[in-house]
Amino acid sequence: MASRICDSVLVTGSNRGIGLELVRQLADSPLPPVQIFAGCRDPNGPRSQELAQKHHDVITVVQLDTTSPTSIAEASKLVEAKLKGKGLNLIINNAGVNIPGSLVETGKQEMVDVFTTNVVGPMLIAKDFHPLLCKAAAQFPHQTSMSCSRSAIINVSTLLSSIKRCPENFSVSPMYPYRVSKAALNMLTCCLAEDFRKDGILVMSLHPGWVQTEMGGPEAPLTTLESISSMLKVITSLTEKESGTLLDWEGKNIPW
Amino acid sequence: MASRICDSVLVTGSNRGIGLELVRQLADSPLPPVQIFAGCRDPNGPRSQELAQKHHDVITVVQLDTTSPTSIAEASKLVEAKLKGKGLNLIINNAGVNIPGSLVETGKQEMVDVFTTNVVGPMLIAKDFHPLLCKAAAQFPHQTSMSCSRSAIINVSTLLSSIKRCPENFSVSPMYPYRVSKAALNMLTCCLAEDFRKDGILVMSLHPGWVQTEMGGPEAPLTTLESISSMLKVITSLTEKESGTLLDWEGKNIPW
Ligand SMILES: NC(=O)c1ccc[n+]([C@@H]2O[C@H](COP(=O)([O-])OP(=O)(O)OC[C@H]3O[C@@H](n4cnc5c(N)ncnc54)[C@H](OP(=O)(O)O)[C@@H]3O)[C@@H](O)[C@H]2O)c1
Ligand SMILES: NC(=O)c1ccc[n+]([C@@H]2O[C@H](COP(=O)([O-])OP(=O)(O)OC[C@H]3O[C@@H](n4cnc5c(N)ncnc54)[C@H](OP(=O)(O)O)[C@@H]3O)[C@@H](O)[C@H]2O)c1
Repeated sequence: MASRICDSVLVTGSNRGIGLELVRQLADSPLPPVQIFAGCRDPNGPRSQELAQKHHDVITVVQLDTTSPTSIAEASKLVEAKLKGKGLNLIINNAGVNIPGSLVETGKQEMVDVFTTNVVGPMLIAKDFHPLLCKAAAQFPHQTSMSCSRSAIINVSTLLSSIKRCPENFSVSPMYPYRVSKAALNMLTCCLAEDFRKDGILVMSLHPGWVQTEMGGPEAPLTTLESISSMLKVITSLTEKESGTLLDWEGKNIPW
Repeated sequence: MASRICDSVLVTGSNRGIGLELVRQLADSPLPPVQIFAGCRDPNGPRSQELAQKHHDVITVVQLDTTSPTSIAEASKLVEAKLKGKGLNLIINNAGVNIPGSLVETGKQEMVDVFTTNVVGPMLIAKDFHPLLCKAAAQFPHQTSMSCSRSAIINVSTLLSSIKRCPENFSVSPMYPYRVSKAALNMLTCCLAEDFRKDGILVMSLHPGWVQTEMGGPEAPLTTLESISSMLKVITSLTEKESGTLLDWEGKNIPW
């Protein structure tokens, strides 16, 4: 028997790629969440709009630019209003950018821009949505265990975030701003996992694999369909043991 | 017999604290470097100026603000001119800031400011001084091994940069911007270690311990004298095996 992954979920960067497919598979699941908030930088993007129209009872497209504190604050108010007193169970911080290039091609702007989207955004989202996550956790009064159906944040990270693995894969994809930002995101994950443990909120980092998207490129081995169906299995299985860890789409641990 | 740690060294943030003591102990050593460049945000700071006057044959104070690409570029030109065709052996990226505070007190500005000083600065310094480090490495033509006397970058990191150790020490010092920036700095260290390996340049992260400075506070267990004399022993002993690692002031490995 399929069980509902959670009652309510917010996915950022859901205009294309992994975020769009996450929203699609969540909405198409046998027992979909009651409310799916599809965060998009441009809320009029044709693909997320088409999906929202198909599932108009479930999906709400929310303007959410992770570089803009105002946009994040507004989004949290809109989600709060739509939830009508209920909490938000799950946030998937998927929105992300990569500016590839060697050290010579990397400047202050590239470093700060990628850091702002990939790290500062998830930090502000955790802060502004914290009351809604706490409310969701408190709606399970007899439960002390953690899960994504109760209250959780998933930060979409990458194998390239692993400092330990850097010597193995640096030469094929140097990407200073991206690697540096995703290692920083992992530290954010760990800080939030400690900070929010008392509230019953699970926080972890998840690597989707190398996936065929605009970012991943056509030569990637995984389709979004494969990556996301596997990611959703991992998400469903998470417990407090996995809070503060970095796992891949198959649930395997990646060292920091 | 004491041997010279290196012929030339640049220390950033040497106006006070750990940076000032690094310059002092380097200049006071039995066989001091031929040239010590004391990078200071304000080159007219009284303490570094006093030290430079005492060792005017060895120490050159260099204006260097790690948040300013122009300042870093100008500093590299000045150092190049002073070296008169020789390379620069060692850079100690010591300049750093911490804005303590809980998640609620942390905003976009704090995250970006700390990241810019602690990570973007060392990245730009590595880039702009790379030719001088390569030149220094090439001056050891028969040597394939790495060392700080040949060519190296030391990034001053912290125990709080360790994602693995975060669960143990988060509650006593949350410091989101600082922890996130120093984990990011560790990734930069590892990327640079891989990138510069072909050039014979050693790159590693070093934790000075908890030290009595303006940042460390008076209750810290280590004096700058103790921390820096121990750090200099570690720096002297580094080989290619330690490139791409994070060590503490006693040479013990810290996990990422
Ligand atoms: N693809 C892979 O192989 C791979 C591997 C490891 C990790 N990842 C991670 O997976 C996540 C999704 O990547 P993807 O492959 O789906 O990339 P993608 O195809 O490039 O899509 C990125 C999405 O993020 C959105 N976005 C970018 N900046 C944003 C901002 N400031 N505010 C809000 N949304 C923003 C984009 O919005 P617009 O549509 O408006 O541009 C887009 O919807 C990223 O975090 C990435 O680092 C991907
Ligand atoms: N003290 C500890 O317990 C401890 C522990 C672990 C790691 N660390 C690390 O050790 C390093 C030195 O810390 P400290 O304890 O000596 O701290 P400190 O007493 O606060 O001194 C910091 C130094 O960095 C300089 N600085 C700050 N921003 C700068 C910028 N944008 N450009 C150039 N210089 C800048 C300051 O310059 P001004 O004098 O002009 O302000 C000052 O000289 C830092 O990287 C810190 O993270 C310290």
